[in-house]
Amino acid sequence: MQRDRASAAGSDGAAAAPGALAIICGGGTFPAAVADAVAKSGRRLVMFGLRNWADAALIERYPHHWIAIGQLGRFLRLAHEEQCSEVLLIGTLMRPSLSAVRLDWRTLCLLPRIVRAFRGGDDHLLSAVARMIEAGGLRVIGVEQVAAEIMAPLGVLGSVQPTERDRSDIARALALIAAMGPFDVGQAAIVADNHVLAVEAAEGTDNMLLRIGEMRRQRRVVNAAGVGVLVKAPKPGQDRRFDLPSIGTRTVENAIAAGLAGIAVAAGSTIVADPGETIACADRARMFVVGVAAGAPQ
Amino acid sequence: MQRDRASAAGSDGAAAAPGALAIICGGGTFPAAVADAVAKSGRRLVMFGLRNWADAALIERYPHHWIAIGQLGRFLRLAHEEQCSEVLLIGTLMRPSLSAVRLDWRTLCLLPRIVRAFRGGDDHLLSAVARMIEAGGLRVIGVEQVAAEIMAPLGVLGSVQPTERDRSDIARALALIAAMGPFDVGQAAIVADNHVLAVEAAEGTDNMLLRIGEMRRQRRVVNAAGVGVLVKAPKPGQDRRFDLPSIGTRTVENAIAAGLAGIAVAAGSTIVADPGETIACADRARMFVVGVAAGAPQ
Repeated sequence: MQRDRASAAGSDGAAAAPGALAIICGGGTFPAAVADAVAKSGRRLVMFGLRNWADAALIERYPHHWIAIGQLGRFLRLAHEEQCSEVLLIGTLMRPSLSAVRLDWRTLCLLPRIVRAFRGGDDHLLSAVARMIEAGGLRVIGVEQVAAEIMAPLGVLGSVQPTERDRSDIARALALIAAMGPFDVGQAAIVADNHVLAVEAAEGTDNMLLRIGEMRRQRRVVNAAGVGVLVKAPKPGQDRRFDLPSIGTRTVENAIAAGLAGIAVAAGSTIVADPGETIACADRARMFVVGVAAGAPQ
Repeated sequence: MQRDRASAAGSDGAAAAPGALAIICGGGTFPAAVADAVAKSGRRLVMFGLRNWADAALIERYPHHWIAIGQLGRFLRLAHEEQCSEVLLIGTLMRPSLSAVRLDWRTLCLLPRIVRAFRGGDDHLLSAVARMIEAGGLRVIGVEQVAAEIMAPLGVLGSVQPTERDRSDIARALALIAAMGPFDVGQAAIVADNHVLAVEAAEGTDNMLLRIGEMRRQRRVVNAAGVGVLVKAPKPGQDRRFDLPSIGTRTVENAIAAGLAGIAVAAGSTIVADPGETIACADRARMFVVGVAAGAPQ
């Protein structure tokens, strides 16, 4: 994890006019789905793994560099050397503790701006980072621009249909997520038979799902299994170039364990990692997965 | 727990014009604080313990009956026999599983109305129950009308003052709780340095506090200890006759374990159970407890 091998670029000739794509990569399993989709499209990509966050096995599968949080100057230099024209920010990045941050000079100069953004919540922080990258001459783009095929489409994805009650639970959760938008809270909630069972904040979707089982044991949740929906949608006004909601097989497995009826995600703005296996997993459990229209995209 | 001893009423002569006070009592430790405060005021009270929810040790300390959820007719008959004129609904009542419900005829006749209310969320359910009790000739009142002294006052309760950052976190949490009002979600959130770390839904305040420690271990929360505030406030538009937020020593202990700076509660509409010990516990940990103005009361 510590070495900084400036791997020779993939040099498979790439596709079109735009230069290589730099992928700044945090933790989680979703970056793999994105990187693989981009690679399949034929575009040359260079991974920039965030040290301590990104999965080494994924990063080292492609031409790559390791960077630390706070090394904006180093990133920009390397990205230019690699002839990258565009940047994708992908993966989870929990709020780093200050000891994990390595500041280079450029970042240091921008620090007051970063601190202000940090206090404003995740969205502001990422938007500020994106602005600083763009000031460095690169264009920050979103997943849908390079790997639209891994975004959830509108409609039922597997073989199970949501019921009318599920539809009503979905609508309530979407409205709740929209109402919480100004507070930069999570992008997910669980609603069962019109009751809000859980709201995601810093704990993440998997932890939120796990607590449904705990609440059942405590008799705080008494809905029968097969009632209730996990709903994921971007916050209204969210910059859709980063931090999009995402689901994968683990999400489905945890939703099954929580006894839910299904999962609804905002169509066009939610990543479905490994969609084949994810949907198959849901189908086997008779759980629906549906892409829904969630407010007007920004 | 199963016997239904129709205890002779306390007959200590009571105080004034109003008849006895019926206290329908769910689970939790807060009903004890309320019952004791009412008893101290000299008013005759009759406890109606909800079977499987209420604490027998508390219920049996006073003249009492046990009732099951669904026995509205039985409650009204007993309350009239005991010459109760007013009713207080107090304590937690997690959504009961249907097998725990015992329907009497009166409740059965009202069932369609109850089911509609049930689907509307806790507030609607309790409001519907209150309407039905009032249709039965009793007046449903709130804690502040009989035990105002256990409601949090405005201002700092102990010896520790919130900082300006804490004040800002409190304001953000209050605004979030207000925004979630229409969804009948929880009455509490945790905000640290302007970030929403947790939002309470069905899990309850103690479970929400416990997950902060878990999130610290997972590095999802990296704020230093001594940053962050638990804020509890009624939902806007909430009927303040029941389900008021409440704190006690356990809340303080869990907030300490979560590494928070303090606790803010809506003044005038939050129960502080055992205020002496609760505040002493907070003072010892250098944790503030403050009553704040939370929107216009209904």
